[in-house]
Amino acid sequence: MEVMQVLHMNGGMGESSYANNSLLQRKVLLTTKPIMEAAVTALFSTAAATFPASLAIADLGCSSGPNTLFAVSEIINIMSNLCKATKQELPEIQVFLNDLPGNDFNTIFSSFLPRFQEKLSEQMKSKNGAWATLSCFFNGVPGSFYGRLFPRESLRLIHSSYSLHWLSQVPRGLEGNKGNIYMSRSSPPSRDFSTFLECRGQELVVGGRMLLTLQGRRNDDSSSKECCYIWDLLAIALNEMVSEGLIEEEKVDSFNVPMYTPSPKEVRGEVQKQGSFSIDCLEVSEVNWSVLDTNFNPNVVSEDGGYNMAKCMRAVAEPLLIEHFGEEIIDEVFKRYRAQLVDAMSKEKTAFVNIIILLKKIT
Amino acid sequence: MEVMQVLHMNGGMGESSYANNSLLQRKVLLTTKPIMEAAVTALFSTAAATFPASLAIADLGCSSGPNTLFAVSEIINIMSNLCKATKQELPEIQVFLNDLPGNDFNTIFSSFLPRFQEKLSEQMKSKNGAWATLSCFFNGVPGSFYGRLFPRESLRLIHSSYSLHWLSQVPRGLEGNKGNIYMSRSSPPSRDFSTFLECRGQELVVGGRMLLTLQGRRNDDSSSKECCYIWDLLAIALNEMVSEGLIEEEKVDSFNVPMYTPSPKEVRGEVQKQGSFSIDCLEVSEVNWSVLDTNFNPNVVSEDGGYNMAKCMRAVAEPLLIEHFGEEIIDEVFKRYRAQLVDAMSKEKTAFVNIIILLKKIT
Repeated sequence: MEVMQVLHMNGGMGESSYANNSLLQRKVLLTTKPIMEAAVTALFSTAAATFPASLAIADLGCSSGPNTLFAVSEIINIMSNLCKATKQELPEIQVFLNDLPGNDFNTIFSSFLPRFQEKLSEQMKSKNGAWATLSCFFNGVPGSFYGRLFPRESLRLIHSSYSLHWLSQVPRGLEGNKGNIYMSRSSPPSRDFSTFLECRGQELVVGGRMLLTLQGRRNDDSSSKECCYIWDLLAIALNEMVSEGLIEEEKVDSFNVPMYTPSPKEVRGEVQKQGSFSIDCLEVSEVNWSVLDTNFNPNVVSEDGGYNMAKCMRAVAEPLLIEHFGEEIIDEVFKRYRAQLVDAMSKEKTAFVNIIILLKKIT
Repeated sequence: MEVMQVLHMNGGMGESSYANNSLLQRKVLLTTKPIMEAAVTALFSTAAATFPASLAIADLGCSSGPNTLFAVSEIINIMSNLCKATKQELPEIQVFLNDLPGNDFNTIFSSFLPRFQEKLSEQMKSKNGAWATLSCFFNGVPGSFYGRLFPRESLRLIHSSYSLHWLSQVPRGLEGNKGNIYMSRSSPPSRDFSTFLECRGQELVVGGRMLLTLQGRRNDDSSSKECCYIWDLLAIALNEMVSEGLIEEEKVDSFNVPMYTPSPKEVRGEVQKQGSFSIDCLEVSEVNWSVLDTNFNPNVVSEDGGYNMAKCMRAVAEPLLIEHFGEEIIDEVFKRYRAQLVDAMSKEKTAFVNIIILLKKIT
C-alpha cells in the first residue's frame, strides 16, 4: 500500500465526511491552546527587535473540515492581541495548509476558507488601531511531511495536531501480524519521526517554534492497550466477518494500519538525538473517546458516544479500509465496529493518550 | 453574478474538461517562450552578486490541466541551464499556483503535480553537478488576482497567461446590451488592470519581472471584430434559440461575459500611469482559432477546427453559461455554437490577438 496515495480523511461535506465528524480532534486542539499561546508569545518576545514585516506559519496535516483553520485562527488571534498590547504593527501573515495530495483541498478553498476569511475580517473590524488591519495570505501545500515542503529557514511557526502518529508506510516485520491490524511487537518506526524533525529543522528559522500533538501512550510497552484498543475493536469486527465468511482471513492478516503511538520517553529521545531543537515543553494529556462526556460515568450509558466514535473513526479510516477490502463491506464493518465501541465505552473509561511537545529551533 | 464564485475552467479530466481542451492556450504559451527566457536571464544577471538561497515564483490563473505547470517547467529549465552555464548552485524554488477558489486544485495536486515532479526529477538526474539537485516546493493559492495574494516583496517572477482578460465583474453600463453578450461600447474597465498592477507591484521585489499574456486587439476600437467575434458567434447561437422559444430573450439580454480585451496602447498607458513598473518588452501576436492550422487556407476546410474550438470554448465558458442559463440547454447551445464556428472558420481567417508584456519592478 502506498500510504501517501491512500491516506486521507473522508472528503466533501457528506454524512461520513471528516468535515462533519471531527469533534474529537477539535477537543484535542482546545487542550493545546495554552501551549500555543506560550509558543506565539515566546516567538514575539525573542524577535521583538527585528520583527519582520511578514511571517510564515504552517499547519501540517490540516485535513479538510472545520478544524483545518482552527489552529491558524488561534495563532492569528494571539498575535493580534500581542501586537495590540505592545503597540506593534501586525506583520503580514503567510499561512501554509499542508496535507497529503489526496486531501480535499477544493472544499477548503471554496468553502471553509471564504467563511473563515469573512469571520476574520469582521473580528478585525471590531478592533481599533494598526493591529486591526490584517493581511493574511493562504496557501495549500500538497505533500508528505516526511519530506521537505518549504524553502530553508522560511517558517517561524509550525503546528501539527493528530497527524504525526500516521506513518509514511506500514512498519516492516508485520507479515506475521495474524488477526491484528495494528503493529504490536515490531521495533518502533523512529525513522519517520527523525526524518520529520530533520526536514522541519531545515525549514524553521532559528528561534522558530514547533507545536506537535500526536496520539501516544504513557506506557513504555508499544503493545499496551492504551494505544491498540481502538484498532483491536475494529479487528474484532473484521474477524467476526471472517468467521462468517464475509471477508477472507488472509485479507485481515495482511491489513495493517500505518500508525505508531510513541511514549513521551521515545519522543524526547528522538528530539535529542536529532539535535536541531530544544524542548520548551512536553506534556501528556487524555481525550475521552466520547466527545460529550469529559468524565466516564458507568451509570450513564450513552449509545451516542459509540455512534459518534464510529463515525469519527470512519471519517479517518474509511479510505484505508476501502483500498484494502473494497467498498462493498464498509457499511457492515462500521455497523459492527460501532457495536464494539458502544459496548467498550459502556464498560470502561476509554480515552486516547496525547503527547504535546513544543520545540524551539536552536541551530 | 459573482465572477469570483462562478468563473473557472471546467474541472476534472472528462471530455468537456479544460484539462482535455486547452491546446490553444498551450500554443499561446509556446509563443512566449523566448520572452520568458529573456526575463529569467535578466533576473539572474542583475541578481548575480546577491543571489538568494531560495526564490519564489508565481503563476496567476494557472487553471487545472496540462498547461498548469507548463510555464513553471519552462522557468525551471531556463534557470537550471543558466546555473549550469555560470556554475552557480540552483536556488531552492518555491512555486505558487494561483487561481480562483472554484478552480480544480484537487486534480492539480493529485494528478498533474505528481506526474510533473516525477518527470522533473528524471530530467534533473540526466544533468551533472550541483545544478542537478533541485528543491522545488509547490503551493496552491486560491483567490482573485484583483487583490493581494502574497506578502510584500516576496516574489521574484510572476507569470500569467490568458487570464488577465477576465475581469472581476461584468463592466457597468451593459444593462442595455440587447442581444449581445460581450461588452461593446461601454468605457473600458481599466480599474481592474490598475488594481492588478498595484497588488503585484507590492508583491514583487525591486528588479523582479512579470510576464503577462492576454487576449487583446490591435484596433483602438473596443467593439472591433478582432475581440468580439468569438462571442458574437455564441450570441448568434443563443439568439437562434431565443427565436425558437428555447431561451427567454431577457436571459440573453442580461448575460454578459466578464471580459475585456485591451489594445497595446491601453495596456502601456495603464502601466505608465500606475508607476511601479518599466516595460522591458511589449509585443502583439496572433493565434489561430484552429489549433492545427497555423495558416488559413480557404481550400482546406476542416470540420475538426470548429469542433475543437467549440470544445475549447466550452471548457472555458460552460460554468458561466450554466450559472446564467441552467444546465439543460448547454448541449444544444454548444451544438449550435460549433456550427457557427465551423462556418466562420471555413470562410475567413479567424484568430485571437494576444498582447504580451514583460514588466520590471522599478520602485
